[in-house]
Amino acid sequence: MSDFKRCYMYNEDMDSLAQKLEAEGRGLKDLLGGKGSNLCLMTNAEIPVPPGFTITTDTCIEYVETGELPAGLEEEVMASIEKLEQWVEKNIGNPDNPLLVSARSGSKFSMPGMMDTVLNLGMNDEVAAALVELTGDERFVWDAYRRLIMMFGNVVRGINRELFEQCLDEVKQEEGVTEDVDVSSEGLKQVVEREKQVYKQHLGEDFPTDPATQLFATIRAVFSSWDNDRAIAYRELNGIPHDLGTAVNVQTMVFGNLGEGSGTGVAFTRDPATGEREIYGDYLVNAQGEDVVAGIRTPVPISDLEERMPQIYAEFADICEKLEQFYHDMEDVEFTVEQGKLWMLQTRDGKRTARAAVRIAVDMVHEGLITEEEAVMMVDPDQLDQLLHRQFNPEAKPEAVAMGVAASPGAAAGEVVFTSERATEEAQAGNRVVLVRHETSPEDIRGMAASQGILTMLGGKTSHAAVVGRQMGKPCVVGCSAIDIDYGTKQFTVNGQVVNEGDYVSIDGTTGEVMLGDVDTVDSDIIQVLRGELEPEQSEDYQYFAEFMPWAGKIRKLGVRTNADTPEDATLARTLGAAGIGLTRTEHMFFGEDRLLNFQKMILSDSEQAMTEAANALLPYQRDDFYGILKAMDNLPVIIRLLDPPLHEFLPKDAESIQAAAQVSGKTPKEIRDIAANLHEFNPMLGHRGCRLGVTFPMIYKMQVRAIFEAACQLEKEGYNPVPEVMIPLVGILGELEILRGYAEEVAQEVMDEQGVEFEYVIGTMIEIPRACLVADDIARIADFFSFGTNDLTQMAFGFSRDDVEGKFIPAYIEQRIIAVSPFESIDRDGVGELMRMAVEKGREANPDLELGICGEHGGEPRSVHFCHEIGLDYVSCAPLRVPIARLAAAQAQVENPR
Amino acid sequence: MSDFKRCYMYNEDMDSLAQKLEAEGRGLKDLLGGKGSNLCLMTNAEIPVPPGFTITTDTCIEYVETGELPAGLEEEVMASIEKLEQWVEKNIGNPDNPLLVSARSGSKFSMPGMMDTVLNLGMNDEVAAALVELTGDERFVWDAYRRLIMMFGNVVRGINRELFEQCLDEVKQEEGVTEDVDVSSEGLKQVVEREKQVYKQHLGEDFPTDPATQLFATIRAVFSSWDNDRAIAYRELNGIPHDLGTAVNVQTMVFGNLGEGSGTGVAFTRDPATGEREIYGDYLVNAQGEDVVAGIRTPVPISDLEERMPQIYAEFADICEKLEQFYHDMEDVEFTVEQGKLWMLQTRDGKRTARAAVRIAVDMVHEGLITEEEAVMMVDPDQLDQLLHRQFNPEAKPEAVAMGVAASPGAAAGEVVFTSERATEEAQAGNRVVLVRHETSPEDIRGMAASQGILTMLGGKTSHAAVVGRQMGKPCVVGCSAIDIDYGTKQFTVNGQVVNEGDYVSIDGTTGEVMLGDVDTVDSDIIQVLRGELEPEQSEDYQYFAEFMPWAGKIRKLGVRTNADTPEDATLARTLGAAGIGLTRTEHMFFGEDRLLNFQKMILSDSEQAMTEAANALLPYQRDDFYGILKAMDNLPVIIRLLDPPLHEFLPKDAESIQAAAQVSGKTPKEIRDIAANLHEFNPMLGHRGCRLGVTFPMIYKMQVRAIFEAACQLEKEGYNPVPEVMIPLVGILGELEILRGYAEEVAQEVMDEQGVEFEYVIGTMIEIPRACLVADDIARIADFFSFGTNDLTQMAFGFSRDDVEGKFIPAYIEQRIIAVSPFESIDRDGVGELMRMAVEKGREANPDLELGICGEHGGEPRSVHFCHEIGLDYVSCAPLRVPIARLAAAQAQVENPR
Repeated sequence: MSDFKRCYMYNEDMDSLAQKLEAEGRGLKDLLGGKGSNLCLMTNAEIPVPPGFTITTDTCIEYVETGELPAGLEEEVMASIEKLEQWVEKNIGNPDNPLLVSARSGSKFSMPGMMDTVLNLGMNDEVAAALVELTGDERFVWDAYRRLIMMFGNVVRGINRELFEQCLDEVKQEEGVTEDVDVSSEGLKQVVEREKQVYKQHLGEDFPTDPATQLFATIRAVFSSWDNDRAIAYRELNGIPHDLGTAVNVQTMVFGNLGEGSGTGVAFTRDPATGEREIYGDYLVNAQGEDVVAGIRTPVPISDLEERMPQIYAEFADICEKLEQFYHDMEDVEFTVEQGKLWMLQTRDGKRTARAAVRIAVDMVHEGLITEEEAVMMVDPDQLDQLLHRQFNPEAKPEAVAMGVAASPGAAAGEVVFTSERATEEAQAGNRVVLVRHETSPEDIRGMAASQGILTMLGGKTSHAAVVGRQMGKPCVVGCSAIDIDYGTKQFTVNGQVVNEGDYVSIDGTTGEVMLGDVDTVDSDIIQVLRGELEPEQSEDYQYFAEFMPWAGKIRKLGVRTNADTPEDATLARTLGAAGIGLTRTEHMFFGEDRLLNFQKMILSDSEQAMTEAANALLPYQRDDFYGILKAMDNLPVIIRLLDPPLHEFLPKDAESIQAAAQVSGKTPKEIRDIAANLHEFNPMLGHRGCRLGVTFPMIYKMQVRAIFEAACQLEKEGYNPVPEVMIPLVGILGELEILRGYAEEVAQEVMDEQGVEFEYVIGTMIEIPRACLVADDIARIADFFSFGTNDLTQMAFGFSRDDVEGKFIPAYIEQRIIAVSPFESIDRDGVGELMRMAVEKGREANPDLELGICGEHGGEPRSVHFCHEIGLDYVSCAPLRVPIARLAAAQAQVENPR
Repeated sequence: MSDFKRCYMYNEDMDSLAQKLEAEGRGLKDLLGGKGSNLCLMTNAEIPVPPGFTITTDTCIEYVETGELPAGLEEEVMASIEKLEQWVEKNIGNPDNPLLVSARSGSKFSMPGMMDTVLNLGMNDEVAAALVELTGDERFVWDAYRRLIMMFGNVVRGINRELFEQCLDEVKQEEGVTEDVDVSSEGLKQVVEREKQVYKQHLGEDFPTDPATQLFATIRAVFSSWDNDRAIAYRELNGIPHDLGTAVNVQTMVFGNLGEGSGTGVAFTRDPATGEREIYGDYLVNAQGEDVVAGIRTPVPISDLEERMPQIYAEFADICEKLEQFYHDMEDVEFTVEQGKLWMLQTRDGKRTARAAVRIAVDMVHEGLITEEEAVMMVDPDQLDQLLHRQFNPEAKPEAVAMGVAASPGAAAGEVVFTSERATEEAQAGNRVVLVRHETSPEDIRGMAASQGILTMLGGKTSHAAVVGRQMGKPCVVGCSAIDIDYGTKQFTVNGQVVNEGDYVSIDGTTGEVMLGDVDTVDSDIIQVLRGELEPEQSEDYQYFAEFMPWAGKIRKLGVRTNADTPEDATLARTLGAAGIGLTRTEHMFFGEDRLLNFQKMILSDSEQAMTEAANALLPYQRDDFYGILKAMDNLPVIIRLLDPPLHEFLPKDAESIQAAAQVSGKTPKEIRDIAANLHEFNPMLGHRGCRLGVTFPMIYKMQVRAIFEAACQLEKEGYNPVPEVMIPLVGILGELEILRGYAEEVAQEVMDEQGVEFEYVIGTMIEIPRACLVADDIARIADFFSFGTNDLTQMAFGFSRDDVEGKFIPAYIEQRIIAVSPFESIDRDGVGELMRMAVEKGREANPDLELGICGEHGGEPRSVHFCHEIGLDYVSCAPLRVPIARLAAAQAQVENPR
């Protein structure tokens, strides 16, 4: 830290500073903030920027830690002020030729409006008088003065802003005017006097006339504002670290309010909504920048400037192009015209919609402005979601009646139903429905599939409803505690309103909003094209997307597969670029009507013989399931996970289904209830499931493995090339895999002998138990692949049941900064990640051919994808609609961290 | 393996063999089995042993793996036979001077009766005829012959033994006699003929007359018997590894059935029940060894031999002493007298009761036979349990009506009660009760404390009932699925019998037996003395125990603390040698009547203010609790764990208690049910508990910490020296401990300021979350101590909920050899142990002063204590009655693995 100065003039040599910082692994923005470094760079590039200097973020960090301005800072600031005075040939506080400055915050990441700014520093009575003479614009001078007192009084000294605004209001009333612009210059001078009184009343001291006093108090205030409540909240919301600090930019004031030849504007160098290549923005004649931001006056489109001041506009357009050339990106700029002279006040990379992001990236490659690699780095993977999921028509969207957790993105509207049965019936009758439940369970799978979306009262982002919703690509809002469901009366209440079964409700899984009524939705073009419902040439989005994605594909080293349980999902994922299936869950397949009864019969059997028979009755169904999926993924690997959940999840719960199960099993309802009670578990997550079932009920796994291999044989015979991979879940002990691999190999041999077909297959395991990571070397010796099940691994490494903790204390943990982000959302590098790294190292060492992947939901989350790239996994696997996101994140990981 | 011969003669040099084996980390017994190595050692020590040789266990392992006798074995065996022939100057199969041999199994660990043995090998028609001439005892010869055919036919060839026995029975019938000894020699010859016919009928071939054929077939059979069902079952039961193999001892036959001058006996060199120093055993005149073991004839006490053959007895007594001198232990021997000549057939360290074990160890030290260190190694720590827990009077013990899981040792008898309330009432009325429940929960604590013992239908060794039972020292049988409880009618049925509330039942927590009726129990002397209910001089047990235990104390490096929640338990543990408390659980303290209501009021509060008030109402109770415990442990450290279980465990469940809670909280019963539903967790083990409560409801932890420190202040003022240590449970993330340590330090300062007393305290954390082990370095920087909570760590590392898996698939896992022992019983070294090792290393490196202990139940289990010693923990902590066990195990660990 001591290697760097505390103040950098905008016109200093930035190249050598950048080099010095790079040696520390930092960039200009780390030290000077985004605004400061861009102002320096623009100045260096001879773009007209009001002269100034930046006080470093390091200084802020010291200040925040100690509560004191670091020793030597004042001298350095004063020396910089002197340089500035020489540069602009004005002097601060000098009535002959006064310099006014602003002091603005600016951290590494943009945090618009979160921290403090004070303008017009250096103003006092003497300077005001001098300025009136210099500018001849008395009104302007007193307006600037009253703004300084208000900003300084409020921002630096904490006096309620309204008290200052009242001063202006009083004068307006006295003068009988309603608009600020109509107040006389004398009136504004009055306002200055009254504001000074307010200041004195509240602090017992006069407004400081000494410019240095004004400046240093402001610097302190800006530094302190780094840790104000709204800044902290903003950082939390946006995942910005809390230890970066903000820089302070001390900059010569320029004024857009010096008459009709002055003005101020904000613009994007391209359209941030569509990405179209044209300057896009607003301009206000005779106004200060804050007026644009505050929306007090309605601005005109930037094109008006072209008519009004063609020369200025041409200069501005040149600068915009120069900025794009320099930053290789679409820029978001602020500028001021002061009496016919253009000044650039700020530039930063512009925020944009997903649509615009992709288009701009593609266009800029065509323009020769950026490389494909740069294009890939320009699009935020998470944003791609917007392009793929159904959305509400923004114009038709009403206000939300409640907010839940946004669990699976997209928009859904339909009639309220409270049971899966009803959902299925209604869907069969051609009606759109939204399934509303306290929570969902595997028995609800069919109802969920039949619904447009799912709304639950309980649960978090990784509850059953959320996980399955994302998997199915169904919009889902969970943990919406504002709704109170009464299954008995078939209604729910929300904020006092009663919603009956059959009423329409709309949910936005991207935002968590719940709306009453049938809000209009629009499907994503890209998906329509991929599904063959729209021609490619009918969709610009698709065309840009289709050009863009292969660049990511070329760059990335990490493979991307999909988690898919149906041929339809598999096909969609394949068109989105999935190179195989990383996880096919087999449990959902048992919830079809006949299947469930057969499955229940199996569980309820008394003898091994009867169980085996019941299991074998399920074989044809499973074989069909696997046939379809293997066919859809012809030539590509398909990992099929053997049964994972505890058996009790499959048992009937209500009287009717118990009766049905009684009929097929020959048991009495009482016996069935007893068996269910016996299978009940206190902590089912840690219970009798996964490979533990495989060991104790071998007939189930044997049937499943046989179904896989028989399906593969059939496809081989038909000329396809199926690549089945058998995955054994929940292995924590070598012996589990030994026994179960043995069973699978036996069955494979049997099937080959029976069918006279030789087929290739591999057998691997999920790594989702902490212990498995510790003994990964042993396990790797008999596993062909590892697939990290990071959902369960996170649950067990933290001791967090995702169903229980997400809504309960995870938010408090984030608020209290115990964690930065839920470990279920993004892989916890220090804990879960260390276990993974250990398993990768041990596994590869024991078995160099071991294939390594991840099929937990983290596989579709960009930060986690980066981590998977870093630790050298072979692939990630995620829900179909997240495949492009993972591909893009993988490409970005390769660019940032080549392997 | 190839370094060793396959056959070793008894008179070979054992010293050099032992050295060679030691270089490989093995001992004589590993290679030669227990029997073989002892026969060799006795021969080397010039004790009369029938000459022979041993075929190694390595050979058996090869045989088991390949199913073939290893190449070269036959030649080596035949060469050894030749040496044997030269040694005894007889020849196998040679009618002039025939040699008969036995072939006996003998593995490293004694597995009595589990594997196979064949005697009289070398016998055939020719040899029989010759022997008749040589011995003149025709009856003896035919008897030996018919025994060979029977044993060989049955053991080696698998023919039903009864078929051979029938041959003898027929002859007895024909001769009109009932006793074997009355059959004529001609009759026995007949039996031989008939047995030969049985043999031929079943195998289609003649009984092999070639001695070599007999011998090799027997060797194969003995090797194979290593993996017979009963041997496997025995090894599983006794924790003997399955890969050791058995040796085969080929040994010259000697005969105790050659008339009145012959006989056979078994003896212990001391009394195995009491430890008294006198030879203890049985002798049979004119009999073979198998007759003693089979119990066909009633033997006489060994003292009779002294009268009958004083010289032989004197020689025998000398040998016994010599053996004790040699083995430094009490020996269990077999011997035969053949026509006035004494032969020792076997010696091994004798099994003994706990009482005898301690007495023999102490006596042998007094006798100068062993060192204190050797004495410490001589007692099995687990056995000490016998000396400390209440026991049924063995003479009064009826047959069990059902068996459950032996969860907490000791004997209990009392009237059946089905609720905790009833248990408390009956106990207050002076009645002994046994609490019988489906399962127990924290609400049952008072009822459990009031009961003699606990019997549950569900749960495993680490279910709530089991854990709390052991903690309280209450006998407990869990998972007794044979009982069927009906709370409604207040009765349970077991094997068709109905037991009503008020009927007597007795349970043995050491064996898992459930008996009807009030079986008489006896208390342990030692506990009576320690509690001051018996004078030391009235108890021999106590005197030996009191002399023995300090030797363990001197040797061990690992400290031993206790887990105690009451002053009574703390005091008892202290008298048993506990050097402090490693775990005081605070949750049980909230189940007193007033306390529970106050606690419920706190949970049900709407505002933070109200919650804080309700928490503070509990302060005086908690302060009293801690005062008592700190006082009982004056001068010794007392670790108090802050609240651990989820809040919903404390909420009322039945209508009556909901009503009571409604009264104190001002809520309606419906509201209380809603709050309970809201707090419900799917996987409470992984839910909102431990430090997570501390973070979200700081008032609870603050109140508890205040209670601890106020109690400490009070004791300081009274002149005591309390050493409180605050333990924060379930930490997995650095930030949790940072925040909670901060709270505790604040409260400590407040209390010091208020009370004007300076006291010392330390703050540490439980390490029970896998993630905590991975980031142990970070955590150690702000923790004064780590205490491993290996119960939870095991649950999370394996993904096993102990309540769910113990009864369900752990037994199947042991049976299928996936694990050797439940990880809840003994620490899993490869997984959980690796996590611990990692945490120890990282923790000590980051904080060299870090104190390291374990308070999970493994802390009282000998193998786990060894592991804790190995990884360098400072102490283990366990239930009071297990303190001596842990102390002894710790001493043994230090002897075996000095640190």
